[in-house]
Amino acid sequence: MDAALAANLITRVNVGDALTRTAARMPDQLAIVDGERRWTYAQLNARVNDVANALAAQGYSRGNTLALASGNSCEFMVTYLACAKLGVVCVPMNLGWRADEIAYVLDHSEARGLVVEAQLVALVVPALEKVPAVRDVIVAYGTDGRYEQGLPDRDWRTFADLHTGDTREPEFFVDDRDALSYLYTSGTTSFPKGVVGSHTAIYLEALMVAAESGLDKDERIAALMPLFHTAQLNGFGTPAVMMGATVYLQRGFDPGALLDLIERERITRIFALPMMYRALLEFPGIGERDLSSLKRAAYAMAPMPDALLRACLDTFGCEFYLAFGQTEMSPVTTLFRPEHQLSHPGAVGTQVVNVQIEIMGPDGELLPRGQEGEIVYRGPQALNGYLKNPQATAEAFADGWFHSGDVGRLDPDGMLWFSDRYKDVIKSGGENVASIEVEKAIYAADPRVAEAVVVGLPHPRWTEAITAVVTAKPGERVDEASLLDAVKGHIAGFKAPKAVIVVDELPRTSTGKVQKNVVREQHAAHYTSTT
Amino acid sequence: MDAALAANLITRVNVGDALTRTAARMPDQLAIVDGERRWTYAQLNARVNDVANALAAQGYSRGNTLALASGNSCEFMVTYLACAKLGVVCVPMNLGWRADEIAYVLDHSEARGLVVEAQLVALVVPALEKVPAVRDVIVAYGTDGRYEQGLPDRDWRTFADLHTGDTREPEFFVDDRDALSYLYTSGTTSFPKGVVGSHTAIYLEALMVAAESGLDKDERIAALMPLFHTAQLNGFGTPAVMMGATVYLQRGFDPGALLDLIERERITRIFALPMMYRALLEFPGIGERDLSSLKRAAYAMAPMPDALLRACLDTFGCEFYLAFGQTEMSPVTTLFRPEHQLSHPGAVGTQVVNVQIEIMGPDGELLPRGQEGEIVYRGPQALNGYLKNPQATAEAFADGWFHSGDVGRLDPDGMLWFSDRYKDVIKSGGENVASIEVEKAIYAADPRVAEAVVVGLPHPRWTEAITAVVTAKPGERVDEASLLDAVKGHIAGFKAPKAVIVVDELPRTSTGKVQKNVVREQHAAHYTSTT
Repeated sequence: MDAALAANLITRVNVGDALTRTAARMPDQLAIVDGERRWTYAQLNARVNDVANALAAQGYSRGNTLALASGNSCEFMVTYLACAKLGVVCVPMNLGWRADEIAYVLDHSEARGLVVEAQLVALVVPALEKVPAVRDVIVAYGTDGRYEQGLPDRDWRTFADLHTGDTREPEFFVDDRDALSYLYTSGTTSFPKGVVGSHTAIYLEALMVAAESGLDKDERIAALMPLFHTAQLNGFGTPAVMMGATVYLQRGFDPGALLDLIERERITRIFALPMMYRALLEFPGIGERDLSSLKRAAYAMAPMPDALLRACLDTFGCEFYLAFGQTEMSPVTTLFRPEHQLSHPGAVGTQVVNVQIEIMGPDGELLPRGQEGEIVYRGPQALNGYLKNPQATAEAFADGWFHSGDVGRLDPDGMLWFSDRYKDVIKSGGENVASIEVEKAIYAADPRVAEAVVVGLPHPRWTEAITAVVTAKPGERVDEASLLDAVKGHIAGFKAPKAVIVVDELPRTSTGKVQKNVVREQHAAHYTSTT
Repeated sequence: MDAALAANLITRVNVGDALTRTAARMPDQLAIVDGERRWTYAQLNARVNDVANALAAQGYSRGNTLALASGNSCEFMVTYLACAKLGVVCVPMNLGWRADEIAYVLDHSEARGLVVEAQLVALVVPALEKVPAVRDVIVAYGTDGRYEQGLPDRDWRTFADLHTGDTREPEFFVDDRDALSYLYTSGTTSFPKGVVGSHTAIYLEALMVAAESGLDKDERIAALMPLFHTAQLNGFGTPAVMMGATVYLQRGFDPGALLDLIERERITRIFALPMMYRALLEFPGIGERDLSSLKRAAYAMAPMPDALLRACLDTFGCEFYLAFGQTEMSPVTTLFRPEHQLSHPGAVGTQVVNVQIEIMGPDGELLPRGQEGEIVYRGPQALNGYLKNPQATAEAFADGWFHSGDVGRLDPDGMLWFSDRYKDVIKSGGENVASIEVEKAIYAADPRVAEAVVVGLPHPRWTEAITAVVTAKPGERVDEASLLDAVKGHIAGFKAPKAVIVVDELPRTSTGKVQKNVVREQHAAHYTSTT
C-alpha cells in the first residue's frame, strides 16, 4: 500500500470511519429504524460500503459532488455516510426549495449525480432540465425501476443498482479538511450560500455532543426534523452513529405517531421545535401516555417562553435544553442547559467545549462582557468557508473571528443573550429566511408594490413570522390577500410571508434608508394581538 | 489580519485553544492545585499567555522544540499549554532517564531550550554539556535566580523571567497536524523513539475521554502519576483542561498523603498503578477514611488480578476501570469498563470511539474474531509518525494499520484480550510461546515467587531459550531446580523454561514497569557462556 494512503487511513479524521468503528465495536446494535426496516450497525455499514464501492466503480472519487433529495430514510443516511468514506461531497437538498433553487444548487455545487427519493422525482425534474451537467440520477426508496415517459435524458438508476456485493471497507485517501457536505443556507444574498463542512468540523461536533450531553449507545432517538438540516443530521444523526445509539427516522411531525413511537420504542431523546412541543401538549390524551422513557428533549433556534417550558417539564418529565447555533458552526455553539433555563429565561445558553464566543464591536474590537454587539465564534466546528464565494468567506472571517450575523451579549456568567439578526435573516419555524429574498419575490409578484420590507415579527407559533410591510405605487392599490397568493408562486412556501401589511409610508433614516428596526417595533404586536 | 491566519484561528484544532475556551467559559473555576498554589482557569490561562508571549518575544515559533524536565507542577502545565498556543513542540523528559538518554533526546529532538525544575538541574547538566545546541535553560519552581558555579555556558533564566505582562491570547498560525509533543518511548532498541503527537490526535483523545468516561467540570482529579507520561498528561490533564475540571498535582505516590487529599478535597477521580491500589488497601486505618467522594478509579497497563479488583471495589466503593493503549495512540485504545471487569477477568476492554482495533496475521491479513495475532489500530488519536525515523514509521504503518507490537485477540463481543508484547513472544525450537503464559504457570507453580519475567535468550540449539528470571517474596527462597520441575506440571513441555535465574531485583522504568529489554541484555550470555 502507498505510504501516504496508509498514513491517511491510520490517522485521519473521517465521519465515515465513525460508522466503521461502531460497526466493529457493536455489530448487532440497532442503528436505524425506518418504517419496517430495522438495521443493525453491521447491516448499515455493509450497505454503506456496498454503495460506496458501487459509486467508486462508477468513477465517483474524492472531491466529486453527489446531491441528495430525500426525506428521512435509510437511503439518506447510507448516501451521506458512503460519501464520507469516499471523500465525495454530499449536498442534501432542502425539500422546501423550488425548482429554481434546486437548479441553482445543483449547478453551483457542480453535482455530478443526484440521489432522489421516488416521490420527489417530479420536484427535481424541472431543475434537472436546467442543469445538464448532472449526469446520474439515482432514484431511491420504493421504486420498481420503471420511470415515466418524458424524463430528461440522464443515466437513471435505482438505489438498488448501487450494488456490487462488495461490502469491504473502501480505502481511499480523504483529508481531514476535505468537505463532507455543502449545506446551502439562506443568506442575505438572493441565492443561498454553500457552507463547506469538513470531516474535522462534523466529527468534532458529534464527539462534542456525546461529551456535552451524555449521548451514548443506550439512547433511542426520534428523528422527526429533516435530515437535510444540520441540526438533525449532525446534532443527532452523526453523534448517534459515532456512539452507537439508535435513530428512529420519522417523516415529518405527526403528534399521535410520535407519541406512539415514544411509548412503543421507549424513545429517550427527541428534537423538535417549540411549536411542536406545544402541539404535543395539546394532543388529546397526552396525560395518559407513558413518556417515562424520555430523558432529554432538545429544541432549537430560540428560547421557549417560560410558560411553555414549564408545561413541557411538567408533562414530559424529562430534561429540556435549547441548542443554539448555525449551519456554519456544524451547528451547535451554545447549549441552554437544563439547570439554567428556569433561572435565565430568554438566554440561549453557554458555549460548548469546541466553541469560543465573543462579542465584537463595529470596528472589529472584542467587547467586554455585558456589551451588545455581533456574536462571533472560533472553534474547529467552523466551516472551511463558503463554496466558490471568497468574498463572503473573507467577510465572514474578518478580524480572525467567524461573524455569526447575530447580535447579542455575554453576561458575566458567560451566558449568551441573543438580540437580533445582524443581517435581517428571519428564523421562522426552524428555517432561516433572508428578508431580501422574500422582498424580491414580492416585487416579482406584484408590480403595484412600490417598496417592500420584510421582517420577522414575534409569533406564538412560528417564533417569528415572516411579515411583509409594503407601500403601493402612486395611484395603485395593493390587495393583501391577492399579494399573499401571488408571492407563493415565486418562492418556497416556508419563505412566504404570513401576513402583508400595507402602509402609507415607511420609516426612514435621514439618508432615506428604511429603518427595519422601527418597522419591527411598529408592528411588534401584530400577531400577538390578532391571534 | 492575514486571511490564512484568520482562517486558522477560526477553524483549527489546537490543544491550547481548549484552555482559552475553558477560561472564557468558566474563568473562576479552580484549574490546578499545586501545593499552596490554587489557580483558577483565568489565572492559568493568563500565566500561559504571558509565558507564550515571552517565548515568542525570544524568538520561539512554530516547529521549534522546547524540552521540559519537571515533576508535576503548575510550570509543567503552563509550559505544555504555552507550547500548544505557539505551535512549539514540547518534549517532556522522563525523569527516570540517565544523562545519556537525556542528551540523546535533547539532541534528537533539536531542542532549542529546556525548562528544568530547580532540583533537577544537577540531573540535566551532564546532558547539556554534550548538547551545545540547547541555547536556553529556564529554571522553574522555587529558585531565587542564583545558580551554582561551573554550569555550562548557556542563557540561564528563571521561569519567572518568562514574563512580559502581556496576557492577551497569542495569535499564531498552528496547523491541526502540527506536533504538540514528541514523547520518547523506550522501545526494544537501544535509544527511545520520538512519538510525534499532533494537536488533532491529542485534542480528540481528550474529547474522547470526556465522552467515554463522563469527565466533566465537576471532577476533582488527583494527578499522582508523572505528567511526562501520556497517560497522566493526555489521559487526564488535557481532558481536565478541556472540560474545566480541577487537577490536584501530586509529586509521586504517598499513600497517606493521597488519602488525606481525597478526604480534604473530595477527590472524585484517581489514576494509579495496581500496586499502588494494593499499597492503599494495606495502609493502616484505610477502613476509617472517608472515600465517599471517589467516583472512578483508573489503572493502566494490565488487568488487575480478580482478588485485588474485588478488594478495591469493596474498599473504595467506586467504579474501577482499566485504560489500555500506548503512547503512539495518545494513549487510550480500550477501556475495560466497570460492567465488564468482573465478567471478563483478564481482558483489557473494548475499543474507544476514536479507535478501530483489528488483529493482523503474519502476512498483513486481518484475522477473524477469536484468532490471535498482532493488535493493530486505526484512528485519529494515532501518532503522525516517529521523529526523523522514516523506517520505523513505515514499519509501524505497514499495510495501512498501526502496528502496536502487542499480541492478542478479539472475542466475538469485541472484547480485547492482550497476550503479550510481540517482541516478548519467544520463538523456541520452532514454536511460538507467549511469555505471559509461562509467567502465569510460574506463579501457579510456586507461591514463593514474588515476580517472574520470562524472556527468550540466545541459545545455540533453540535459537531462543525460554528463560525465567524471578525474585522471591521477602523472607522466602526460590530453588531453581524445583521450580523448573514444578512449572512442568502447569504447562506444556515445550513452553517450560529451559532455565530459571533467581535475582534480587528486576530493572524497572520510572512507572514501575519491568524492563524486559534490560533483563534480556543482562542475561544475554547465559546460555552461550554456560553451554
